[in-house]
Amino acid sequence: MSPTITAFKQSPDRGRGLARDMRVRWAFEEVGQPYDVRLVTFPEMKEPAYRALQPFGQIPAYRDDDLTLFESGAIVLHIAERHEGLLPDDASARARAICWMFAALSTVEPPIVERSMAAIFERDEPWYEARMPMLDARVRARLDELAARLGDADWLDGAFSAGDLMMVTVLRRLGSSGLLDAYPSLAAYIVRAEARPAYQRAFEAQLAVFKAASGG
Amino acid sequence: MSPTITAFKQSPDRGRGLARDMRVRWAFEEVGQPYDVRLVTFPEMKEPAYRALQPFGQIPAYRDDDLTLFESGAIVLHIAERHEGLLPDDASARARAICWMFAALSTVEPPIVERSMAAIFERDEPWYEARMPMLDARVRARLDELAARLGDADWLDGAFSAGDLMMVTVLRRLGSSGLLDAYPSLAAYIVRAEARPAYQRAFEAQLAVFKAASGG
Repeated sequence: MSPTITAFKQSPDRGRGLARDMRVRWAFEEVGQPYDVRLVTFPEMKEPAYRALQPFGQIPAYRDDDLTLFESGAIVLHIAERHEGLLPDDASARARAICWMFAALSTVEPPIVERSMAAIFERDEPWYEARMPMLDARVRARLDELAARLGDADWLDGAFSAGDLMMVTVLRRLGSSGLLDAYPSLAAYIVRAEARPAYQRAFEAQLAVFKAASGG
Repeated sequence: MSPTITAFKQSPDRGRGLARDMRVRWAFEEVGQPYDVRLVTFPEMKEPAYRALQPFGQIPAYRDDDLTLFESGAIVLHIAERHEGLLPDDASARARAICWMFAALSTVEPPIVERSMAAIFERDEPWYEARMPMLDARVRARLDELAARLGDADWLDGAFSAGDLMMVTVLRRLGSSGLLDAYPSLAAYIVRAEARPAYQRAFEAQLAVFKAASGG
């Protein structure tokens, strides 16, 4: 039986592929493995039955015959370790690809999420305008460093890997912020990743869920 | 030759073991592997030579004969994969331990760091007092969930693993915030981890660096 992952029944991103199931869908597509999706509502995610699967009440959670996992990083790594296509064979190159997964999640994503959270939850607060330049600067510091490392390479370390997959999904969260406009090499990196057939299949699959939920 | 990691020459935590080299030191001690430390100043960390090793100008970076790595999560995982003591042999239990590493770094740490950053950089801002309850609530939500999952177990999933190592180092960053006071089971979890001889050796090693730097 194929593994099952959970995803939002009604994603707040309106089908733009910014929810964290996108990472796992894309990973499955890159390695050519089928998967099933179980859609969950926000109230369901906070219930004890779901928290037994995912203690923090988030998506995605992963389940196969023998194993329950959560955290998109852990699930992508699990898929990448068991199937060809997302990690190099060479041991050092493999460790470096995993290093980029952690860099995406631990170093680049937090200031991006912090900025998004402020834009959602503090937009009407009197301090919103005053704080935003600081939050933008924190994101830009990471983008500067990432662009410097990427240089004019196609991918972060040799061939496309799970590290690029994770980094691109993190950068895509900047969406309509405009912050990527100053980083043409990072914008091109994202476009290059989005052109991959595996990305496109994953994107269409999550978009179909949104369209079905919104009656479209 | 032993691997070398980088650490702060003068840690801003004043020897409390909150800097991210502590995670890697502790991992080396748990698996009984010797390591060397190269101390770096803040100006050195921003120079091109250091950024070649660590593109984001942070500590720790890792170097052995064949490999350069960064990100404490990636380094701890690399150590755990190559030596006995931090990951279970059973494949499913191993994947779950890695899942807890990602949960510590991606889900529990970001609101803790966000709160710390506000306390450091926004303490004198007019909005500081108004925002703090929101930041506390974000941390508490994760602590509630973590405490619920831990229950009365010693460790997050069976025996002590790299997942616990990472989670404990993340929780310790709450330090003097007082937020852990409401979570006796999490406080006891930290104490249990800190009692491990490997933790104590790592703690003493980083403390010695601080004492030497401060002439103590």
